Amino acid sequence: SGLVLVKNPYLDLMEEDILYHFDLGTKTHNLPAMFGDIKFVCVGGSPNRMRAFAQFMQRELGLAGAGEDVADICAGSDRYAMYRAGPVLSISHGMGIPSISIMLHELIKLLHHAKCQDVTIIRMGTSGGLGIKAGSVVITDTAVDSSFRPRFEQVVLDDVVVRSTELDKDLAEELLACSRDIPDFPTLIGHTMCTYDFYEGQGRLDGALCSFSSEKKLEYLRRAYEAGVRNIEMESTAFAALCGLCGLKGESCRFHLL
Amino acid sequence: SGLVLVKNPYLDLMEEDILYHFDLGTKTHNLPAMFGDIKFVCVGGSPNRMRAFAQFMQRELGLAGAGEDVADICAGSDRYAMYRAGPVLSISHGMGIPSISIMLHELIKLLHHAKCQDVTIIRMGTSGGLGIKAGSVVITDTAVDSSFRPRFEQVVLDDVVVRSTELDKDLAEELLACSRDIPDFPTLIGHTMCTYDFYEGQGRLDGALCSFSSEKKLEYLRRAYEAGVRNIEMESTAFAALCGLCGLKGESCRFHLL
Repeated sequence: SGLVLVKNPYLDLMEEDILYHFDLGTKTHNLPAMFGDIKFVCVGGSPNRMRAFAQFMQRELGLAGAGEDVADICAGSDRYAMYRAGPVLSISHGMGIPSISIMLHELIKLLHHAKCQDVTIIRMGTSGGLGIKAGSVVITDTAVDSSFRPRFEQVVLDDVVVRSTELDKDLAEELLACSRDIPDFPTLIGHTMCTYDFYEGQGRLDGALCSFSSEKKLEYLRRAYEAGVRNIEMESTAFAALCGLCGLKGESCRFHLL
Repeated sequence: SGLVLVKNPYLDLMEEDILYHFDLGTKTHNLPAMFGDIKFVCVGGSPNRMRAFAQFMQRELGLAGAGEDVADICAGSDRYAMYRAGPVLSISHGMGIPSISIMLHELIKLLHHAKCQDVTIIRMGTSGGLGIKAGSVVITDTAVDSSFRPRFEQVVLDDVVVRSTELDKDLAEELLACSRDIPDFPTLIGHTMCTYDFYEGQGRLDGALCSFSSEKKLEYLRRAYEAGVRNIEMESTAFAALCGLCGLKGESCRFHLL
């Protein structure tokens, strides 16, 4: 049916569902009227960038109001920012797996309550590249953990549940094909490694703590490259796992900065 | 000496240290002049709340400019917000361990570069309470993980390093003594449980996914209570581990909302 799948038997028994971190709810907002026609959700870490992206989409789609400011739909909360441009929703998710997980739980419920169909979700943003040209875009085929395994370990109460982190291969190919229409836009498909930490977890030598040598760092990054990793960031395994479980066609595209 | 300890042999060899997520740096900013007299750092998830806290401190300390707006020292970045009121720095850290970890690495380096001495850091915010009166404040003695163990597992490259999560007992007692001066201000010292997830990790029945029964949830929370846990949040183990390693006198106080 193309509907988003929530996998929670309690949800439809609840009188009201409050999406706390969006400051939205099923009793206070008409979610089908507000969001029923959404077809694309684009997410990224920074609220400013996601506002700029919504303004860019307004111009690209030739929508009324293009060039004007866009309103933050979640203005009542400072946890996330949400903007829309026609059928495109643009949402910030902060940094790291816990932060994007909260956002995705509430987004999936929002799309469920709004009865959205055939929604594609794309995560955009910057990342650290591995053995690739600066300025390249990496489209993720599979997100891997810090041991290069294609899995996400979710703690449910005190049990560890292992979830798959494969992303939509057709969507990855579709996005790669789009990139070929743009001159000088180096784009590739590869694995994305997701870590819980920016400094010690990604081999940076400039954190407050650093207990490894430069050689050990390079040896680790070499092993990651050999395992197919082309970029490193902090959200992709949780993103892939949640999108996969809830029937959202999802993809992760990261722009390699340095 | 009361100085903050960075444990990174590379740091003092670097020509410039850029605190990326604060949009501050050792070449672009005079960090000793800007921050050298800081004695307290208060951190919390929400940028709006941390601005309000800085304004509150301005009034409480009778500082010039009290009642006026405060400037975001990290205005060039939307990752974190930072305000100061006299010797007090007020910083947001977003949600979850990865987000607070990035902030703490850069804060510790900032305090190091600024040559700050005898700094106390206090984490404030809301949390879910466990078997305590609504509106209570929990002062953390020890942060524990989702299996109630007083430890933080940090992934360094692909090794797992286990770190202690005890907090400063004297500071906890000092804060408890302060609370006694305020009428009707229920405050207690207890363990704080830190999870990687808000929905499945904390036994919530209203996420997009929920695979456990209400009974299983209650049984888990009962075991947590028996292990000494009095509240649940998403940052305390990383906070305790980093403060402990870097010689920061640290404490975590959470206000129990519901």
